[in-house]
Amino acid sequence: MGRIICAGLGPGDPELMSVRSDRAIRGAAHVAYFRKKGRKGQARQIVEGMLAEGALEYPMEYPVTTEIPFDSPEYIRLLAEFYDDWANRLADLAATQEVVVLCEGDPFFYGSFMHLYIRLKDRVQVDVIPGITGMTGCWNVTGQPITWGDDVLTILMGTLPEDELAAHAAGSDALVIMKTGRNLPRVKRALARAGRLGEAWLVERGTMKGQRVDRLADVEDHDCPYFAIVLVHGQGRRPEIAEAAE
Amino acid sequence: MGRIICAGLGPGDPELMSVRSDRAIRGAAHVAYFRKKGRKGQARQIVEGMLAEGALEYPMEYPVTTEIPFDSPEYIRLLAEFYDDWANRLADLAATQEVVVLCEGDPFFYGSFMHLYIRLKDRVQVDVIPGITGMTGCWNVTGQPITWGDDVLTILMGTLPEDELAAHAAGSDALVIMKTGRNLPRVKRALARAGRLGEAWLVERGTMKGQRVDRLADVEDHDCPYFAIVLVHGQGRRPEIAEAAE
Ligand SMILES: C[S@@+](CC[C@H](N)C(=O)[O-])C[C@H]1O[C@@H](n2cnc3c(N)ncnc32)[C@H](O)[C@@H]1O
Ligand SMILES: C[S@@+](CC[C@H](N)C(=O)[O-])C[C@H]1O[C@@H](n2cnc3c(N)ncnc32)[C@H](O)[C@@H]1O
Repeated sequence: MGRIICAGLGPGDPELMSVRSDRAIRGAAHVAYFRKKGRKGQARQIVEGMLAEGALEYPMEYPVTTEIPFDSPEYIRLLAEFYDDWANRLADLAATQEVVVLCEGDPFFYGSFMHLYIRLKDRVQVDVIPGITGMTGCWNVTGQPITWGDDVLTILMGTLPEDELAAHAAGSDALVIMKTGRNLPRVKRALARAGRLGEAWLVERGTMKGQRVDRLADVEDHDCPYFAIVLVHGQGRRPEIAEAAE
Repeated sequence: MGRIICAGLGPGDPELMSVRSDRAIRGAAHVAYFRKKGRKGQARQIVEGMLAEGALEYPMEYPVTTEIPFDSPEYIRLLAEFYDDWANRLADLAATQEVVVLCEGDPFFYGSFMHLYIRLKDRVQVDVIPGITGMTGCWNVTGQPITWGDDVLTILMGTLPEDELAAHAAGSDALVIMKTGRNLPRVKRALARAGRLGEAWLVERGTMKGQRVDRLADVEDHDCPYFAIVLVHGQGRRPEIAEAAE
């Protein structure tokens, strides 16, 4: 009897992987990961040099990315077929083998693995190894705590409508905004409306080669890095007393 | 020249520590950690069996916990003196030695280390190693993704006023509520007002010995575990299409 292990990879620096993920990956005979067509794949890149000799690789290539509008029926159909297909292949393999699926950050936090997970969990044993989320890696490289005391932290996707982004930005002490990419100009407008643009940071490729940390207000509008996170740090409500107060 | 390394420990299971924290802790000659008076300390417990022979330990014992009201001037003064004092001792030691400070979860996420960090960062070299946050460990043990697609996730402290908790609970897809303890009855009332109590889970000592995962609605009002987190999972806005849509 085999099983599927989804190994959280953490934010990018391979040393930030958990001891358990590190061991699972180094010992794996079958390794699957998502990637865009024609790319090496971010997850695969993170484990470079770690795979055992002779390990078999299963790159799961998205059938479409931005060629078709993402809310078209065609797009939704292609994606569903893609997940169905890979769920079947992994379930077959896991009937007899242990298969490690790589997942950036933490698999249960906005991870693409969950599309396989919901299709697999009642068919084969699936074990998930948590990982340090990308945002945790990113706020660490700013060298400032993201939250203290009673701060409220809200996590938003840059794909949300501007009004919703602005309302949450105004109502939270600290902010994390993911999936920025082409949404960055809208994210900036929303933060400016909420009076938070001046405090915001952009972290691109946090903890990885090519890392960049900039004040968001200084980033040009045409500059929309794909793999980036926007952060606004909390200032700490009752900072001196919060900890022992519990 | 020495330095201070703050090692994030992750949610509790020692195998969920990062490869880098694991190595720093096993190699440390000086290890400091916070604890309540008369307790072994949660952080120290996590590294049980990992410390090198002869490693010197520096338990930093909180001078007060709940004996004095946490918003009294006396409490605030005692805590500030405590952090000042330990910052001085660690700075002296770090002038010549490498000192590892243990921190549960991720040090920059509501961590008590930041009270030392702000006092030390301009005096000695301080390197922080990120960790898997407690909440990440907790949502993983529920076996369900905390967020998908465009879900909004809000992180709240159970110490906040009931109205504020209820407003955020109503305005967010997914929720994490930390520092529950004696605040749990108020947290429950706030979730009930927002119509979210039925979906909420309580995770006590996630990934650790004595772990418990229960529906919050089934937890009695007098049952207020100290080391616990409340979770409401997001249901995923546009779940099938979110990932490749970026
Ligand atoms: C679909 S989410 C996957 C989240 C992942 N499961 C995690 O736990 O971080 C992908 C988004 O995470 C963000 N991200 C993740 N890691 C990052 C890093 N190291 N640097 C910058 N952004 C990162 C980017 O905003 C990217 O669009
Ligand atoms: C002051 S915060 C420290 C957070 C830590 N720096 C982190 O990254 O998780 C302490 C709170 O975290 C929560 N917590 C942390 N780890 C936990 C775990 N393994 N199980 C349950 N609750 C946990 C509890 O609500 C506790 O009151």
